[in-house]
Amino acid sequence: SEIKKIAVIAGDGIGPEVVAEAEKVLKRTEELFGYRFETEHALFGGVAIDEKGTPLPEETLEICKKSDAVLLGAVGGPKWDSNSADLRPETGLLGIRKALGLFSNLRPAVVFDCLKDASTLKPEVLEGTDLMVVRELTGGIYFGEKFRRDTEFGQEAVDTCAYNETEIERIVRQAFEIAQKRRKKLASVDKANVLESSRLWREVVIRIAPDYPDVELEHVLVDNCAMQLLRRPSSFDVIVTENMFGDILSDEAAMLTGSIGMLSSASMGEGSFGLYEPVHGSAPDIAGQNVANPIATILSLALMFRLTFGYADAADAIEAAVAEVLDAGHRTGDIAVDKSQAISTTAMGELIVAAI
Amino acid sequence: SEIKKIAVIAGDGIGPEVVAEAEKVLKRTEELFGYRFETEHALFGGVAIDEKGTPLPEETLEICKKSDAVLLGAVGGPKWDSNSADLRPETGLLGIRKALGLFSNLRPAVVFDCLKDASTLKPEVLEGTDLMVVRELTGGIYFGEKFRRDTEFGQEAVDTCAYNETEIERIVRQAFEIAQKRRKKLASVDKANVLESSRLWREVVIRIAPDYPDVELEHVLVDNCAMQLLRRPSSFDVIVTENMFGDILSDEAAMLTGSIGMLSSASMGEGSFGLYEPVHGSAPDIAGQNVANPIATILSLALMFRLTFGYADAADAIEAAVAEVLDAGHRTGDIAVDKSQAISTTAMGELIVAAI
Ligand SMILES: CC(C)[C@H](C(=O)O)[C@@H](O)C(=O)O
Ligand SMILES: CC(C)[C@H](C(=O)O)[C@@H](O)C(=O)O
Repeated sequence: SEIKKIAVIAGDGIGPEVVAEAEKVLKRTEELFGYRFETEHALFGGVAIDEKGTPLPEETLEICKKSDAVLLGAVGGPKWDSNSADLRPETGLLGIRKALGLFSNLRPAVVFDCLKDASTLKPEVLEGTDLMVVRELTGGIYFGEKFRRDTEFGQEAVDTCAYNETEIERIVRQAFEIAQKRRKKLASVDKANVLESSRLWREVVIRIAPDYPDVELEHVLVDNCAMQLLRRPSSFDVIVTENMFGDILSDEAAMLTGSIGMLSSASMGEGSFGLYEPVHGSAPDIAGQNVANPIATILSLALMFRLTFGYADAADAIEAAVAEVLDAGHRTGDIAVDKSQAISTTAMGELIVAAI
Repeated sequence: SEIKKIAVIAGDGIGPEVVAEAEKVLKRTEELFGYRFETEHALFGGVAIDEKGTPLPEETLEICKKSDAVLLGAVGGPKWDSNSADLRPETGLLGIRKALGLFSNLRPAVVFDCLKDASTLKPEVLEGTDLMVVRELTGGIYFGEKFRRDTEFGQEAVDTCAYNETEIERIVRQAFEIAQKRRKKLASVDKANVLESSRLWREVVIRIAPDYPDVELEHVLVDNCAMQLLRRPSSFDVIVTENMFGDILSDEAAMLTGSIGMLSSASMGEGSFGLYEPVHGSAPDIAGQNVANPIATILSLALMFRLTFGYADAADAIEAAVAEVLDAGHRTGDIAVDKSQAISTTAMGELIVAAI
């Protein structure tokens, strides 16, 4: 079959360790399913600042652009986070999203059976929780004009939140389509009682909703959604919202499940190109110790197979292998009940590879 | 003693019913403690739209301005909420906050003993949760310039978020002072890795922190805070944040406790003037049935005694009376385990009055 190109960005902290295990899984699926991949490593984040003086070197963007998909470990750490300039829209995470046109962030929040008790929510409340936050990723206040000016009240800092109809329509249509393939429920989250950008958002949602008559739509105000996620998490299917609301709500939703260390995510643009990464961060405190859990990254690879390549057989096989290894009782330290029985990052990776 | 003036805004839905019980409590404290109050009723919200054609009539503002404090029931309902213009900064809730200079919203989130099991969180996680969200209430994106313009991508809607140093400093100082009277911990929430207004926010917090050396300060990013509230609610004491983040996080925090129907809130400006209201809404579905729980409104009155008038004895007595009535097993429908034993709004009010 055709050779697929994957840009691999290991990043910082535990990023290189978890990505290494996902690469073993990649190699194994190649052997078993006859798919062919070509990987190219690229620098991004703190390690790129150290080696190239910028978090997003031009050559990294080039490598991503000529690839079919990107696998990302994690970026950032105390060493660099103090310099928030590295996260400005021109550079870093926001920069790579904009440069690659990744306007949609898909964050499934599901409960893993083996982690049922890890949530701070009561099991009966959590029962059946399986939702997906679709977050607009390249618009809104994170990308709007920003400046300071002097006033009689000292310095004033200004951020601008803008959305146009085209931006809203493409992400909302994508969310409707995702809902059609799931439980056919969509919650559109806004603050239409106050914000002009939210009023436009809601108008667009209402205008295109008739194209998806099989999807049950509700409009939820963002403050109310923060509450409802706690009160009735299992009643949500797909949640679509703008960039900042999605940032906050997707983290809340992930934490609800108790499974945050196991969750994968996809950032998509037009077409099948996507960037895949675990929801968890770079965990600098445990970096380099061979104790991090590689499962979220391995599941991000499975998501890439499913969404970018349409290799459902390989995706299914990886997900089944993860389930099998967990069912057999193997755990890394983060999910082990008896920490003395915890296995290493590499041991977990190898068990999953063997189970595929 | 001096006569204190209280503007009473019953509002919509269950507002008039719960406010009526709080007024009985007011009268009783007058008799028992010798304080003297003069109340004046004013129209606001949906009922004002119906009777005066505007949610915030000029005479309502006048009544509030010549009062020492405002007691508010609840406003809004399906009949009016569709007209979101009524919530614009010039009118409605945002309008009254701006016109009265109420720049600070204090929302305690505590767990009531009798509702320990009502939370969706596990009891052991919730244990000891007692936090206060201090939300900036008259700045930020809810009050910034808003407009639409035509672009090649259809209409574009723009909101502006602005904060100046004076606005930030006054709310943050208030939060530090509140923390000094509590467990001396302050979490300042921002998105300083992306937003300019958040960077200024954090700069101001860092600049004034040395004036409060006894308060332990942490900076938390808003997305992380949405997670940490779920993971470790009891570790928070005071949380201070800007308007929109506070809107979202205070609702999340209130819902965490399972006690949302019992929580009171205060909106303050410079000096002792304040507007006091229950955290819950107007609950139009149960309006007029004499089943609503008046406790959150009665506790809001107690908060008024404490914060605006400095009548700690009366505040203590009201809070003790509420505890006594609950301890004796009396419940309105919302908090009753056995709904057939639920008592009415007026019965609850009278029991509390009798217990003072
Ligand atoms: C680091 C930051 C810019 C980023 C965001 O808010 O988008 C992160 O929180 C995320 O959610 O991916
Ligand atoms: C109705 C709305 C404008 C208001 C707000 O967001 O401020 C409400 O949600 C609140 O929190 O008091």
